[in-house]
Amino acid sequence: MIKFTNGLVLDKDFNIIKEDVFVDGYSIVAIGSCEKNADTVYDLNGNLLMPSFKNAHSHSAMTFGRSFADDLPLQPWLFDKIFPLEAKLTPQDIYDLSTLAFLEYLTSGTTACFDMYYFPEMMAKASVDFGFRTVMTSGLNNFKESLEAVENYYNEFNNYDNLVSYKLGFHAEYTTDKELIKGLAKLAEKYQAPVFTHASETKSEVEDCINRNGMSPTKYLNELGIFNYGGGAYHSVWIDDEDIEIYKEKGIWAVINACSNAKLASGIAPVSKLLKSGIKIAVGTDGASSNNALDMFREMYTICATQKLNDKDASSTDANDILKASTVGSARCMGLNDCDVIDVGKKADLIVIDMHRPSMQPINNITKNLVYSGGKDVVKMTMINGKILYDDGEFKNIDIEKVYANAQAVIDRIR
Amino acid sequence: MIKFTNGLVLDKDFNIIKEDVFVDGYSIVAIGSCEKNADTVYDLNGNLLMPSFKNAHSHSAMTFGRSFADDLPLQPWLFDKIFPLEAKLTPQDIYDLSTLAFLEYLTSGTTACFDMYYFPEMMAKASVDFGFRTVMTSGLNNFKESLEAVENYYNEFNNYDNLVSYKLGFHAEYTTDKELIKGLAKLAEKYQAPVFTHASETKSEVEDCINRNGMSPTKYLNELGIFNYGGGAYHSVWIDDEDIEIYKEKGIWAVINACSNAKLASGIAPVSKLLKSGIKIAVGTDGASSNNALDMFREMYTICATQKLNDKDASSTDANDILKASTVGSARCMGLNDCDVIDVGKKADLIVIDMHRPSMQPINNITKNLVYSGGKDVVKMTMINGKILYDDGEFKNIDIEKVYANAQAVIDRIR
Repeated sequence: MIKFTNGLVLDKDFNIIKEDVFVDGYSIVAIGSCEKNADTVYDLNGNLLMPSFKNAHSHSAMTFGRSFADDLPLQPWLFDKIFPLEAKLTPQDIYDLSTLAFLEYLTSGTTACFDMYYFPEMMAKASVDFGFRTVMTSGLNNFKESLEAVENYYNEFNNYDNLVSYKLGFHAEYTTDKELIKGLAKLAEKYQAPVFTHASETKSEVEDCINRNGMSPTKYLNELGIFNYGGGAYHSVWIDDEDIEIYKEKGIWAVINACSNAKLASGIAPVSKLLKSGIKIAVGTDGASSNNALDMFREMYTICATQKLNDKDASSTDANDILKASTVGSARCMGLNDCDVIDVGKKADLIVIDMHRPSMQPINNITKNLVYSGGKDVVKMTMINGKILYDDGEFKNIDIEKVYANAQAVIDRIR
Repeated sequence: MIKFTNGLVLDKDFNIIKEDVFVDGYSIVAIGSCEKNADTVYDLNGNLLMPSFKNAHSHSAMTFGRSFADDLPLQPWLFDKIFPLEAKLTPQDIYDLSTLAFLEYLTSGTTACFDMYYFPEMMAKASVDFGFRTVMTSGLNNFKESLEAVENYYNEFNNYDNLVSYKLGFHAEYTTDKELIKGLAKLAEKYQAPVFTHASETKSEVEDCINRNGMSPTKYLNELGIFNYGGGAYHSVWIDDEDIEIYKEKGIWAVINACSNAKLASGIAPVSKLLKSGIKIAVGTDGASSNNALDMFREMYTICATQKLNDKDASSTDANDILKASTVGSARCMGLNDCDVIDVGKKADLIVIDMHRPSMQPINNITKNLVYSGGKDVVKMTMINGKILYDDGEFKNIDIEKVYANAQAVIDRIR
């Protein structure tokens, strides 16, 4: 049992309290005091223990493309640079490249990713080998995977390891035929399960969908029954008031990827409006090929900064709402309700924020300052499932140079 | 003498080379090989030695207001929250609060700031005591300082210490009467010196200036002769093509503060257009009260991200141009031509980028990735004037807890 003591704790209501927190096995077993004795004491030294970030949209293995093709227009970036490389990836590459992503997740206090990519068996293995928590979803489309494969994956990876789970999903309306989408809606009904997909990322995607189907992606997918058990739309940039009504009615998560949408000039999701409308918000990085970082601090900051610019209002978008969306919101979007906050019985997916860094001083408003002044350098410790994987800048039990060499070998081979 | 070896070097042309770099006293004395023997060897271990960032616009002592009043509209933020506190600051507070800023500058690889604030004698003392390089400029306006004081400061602080220099400046058109501005223009002529000021930050500032003076701030100040020896305009957000022509003709630096302008919803400076027009670009953070971070990595990222959004073009604004603007550009804007790049004879204001962090792997394009994936966590070492002040997360010869306690005491007293 580990006892976190002598510091601050962000409690389940997002108040900052001064209490000890006790972790035993995978879980938080007590707050305040505990009958059992801890065998390890973690001295917080005035630092903040808080729930970790969960990255609600990523393609972890896309670390191969980090800074491979920056500052290009969207189409040549995707078709000339990314797709040709992606086609050459082997299952082992997925393992090696995702492991590199896990390292970066730890450095930004992220303990789980919602990952859409191929070769889920390798992603699952990499997660368990590393000790990282992964929620996978399918990138099903006309060219990759099948309904049968998705159903098999769904059953296999929801009964695989307590670090791994699997959600129904497909790539996007523009890559997936109506029959396939209808088939997936039937699977959603069979399992009473939410469905996740890329939607409303670019203006042209929405326009093309309207031309093809006479309605927006949100309306089209909703009519096909995709969201009958909830789900989420990665990006959610180009959505109108009618779409937002559907999000509300069906409990669809708007998964915001502000940095990727900025770098690819896709646009700014209407986050402040979504918050006012009571829509559920989660936050993700998208893949490193488009971002290039996998850094939830930069996502939080970029959401707030771009909302204020977009709304021409410095009071637009409360930083605390975005901090909640990036921790609790993302966790719940991913079905990780058992590790969303610091509370007795929750899984111990926790981080320690170093309050002794200059950017966190003086202390005026800790939670807002995390959004406006935080970064990887304030992440002192990252714990997943009760296990410390990163502490004081060091990774535990992993040969990082080997991870880097493996990832470099992939890009050197496929470029 | 220190020898940097076994790593990469960003040379004066921004190419990455593999050479040893030798620092003796304040300066870089050799690249490649050196006749003298080094008494200290710094093993770069594959990391990147590069010129440091220079922060071309800050109010360092405004660390007191970090996260003191986030998410408020501009007017109540400034008039109800910041001004009343600012009025209570003592000279000693300036010393203590600026020292906190220096700590954060070091963590983001920043070795010099272009500082506009009050009590320059305390800022100069703090800089020399700490070993930080500071270029000060006056915040002269109708209520604070005078032409005589500015001239005295100019002579005093340009002959004070090799870490300190002083530029002519005034607060802004909207706080400074025409006669005072004309008086400063005369001083500029007397000393053949550039003048720096806040200009074209908000839309309403420009509209009010047009209402008052029949022309934009750029045109108005230019007509008064302020830019006859060059100078710079902090913010430069709301400038039109005619203003840009004046920037070009007079060699005015556009000093970009993208994060502060975003958080206060002031707008997005037309950086891509300025670059195409050949205008000189420098980069700064503005003060911590509006930013809240003092982080040149986040400035670089935010410039590129907002330009792409603004231009609706993912190829807008080459990250390498912004990296140059934040290092060489800012240095030259501040008159620090003797420590702008890595070259023999230049002052040794240098940083080491940790290439062994996950966000810097795999290696595809190092300089662009610094902009898109870099952050404080990749800053391994910061050297000013040949002296290592920050290394491996540790500050040399400074009691950081005392700095934090002093800064906290200020805000606790004045709030």
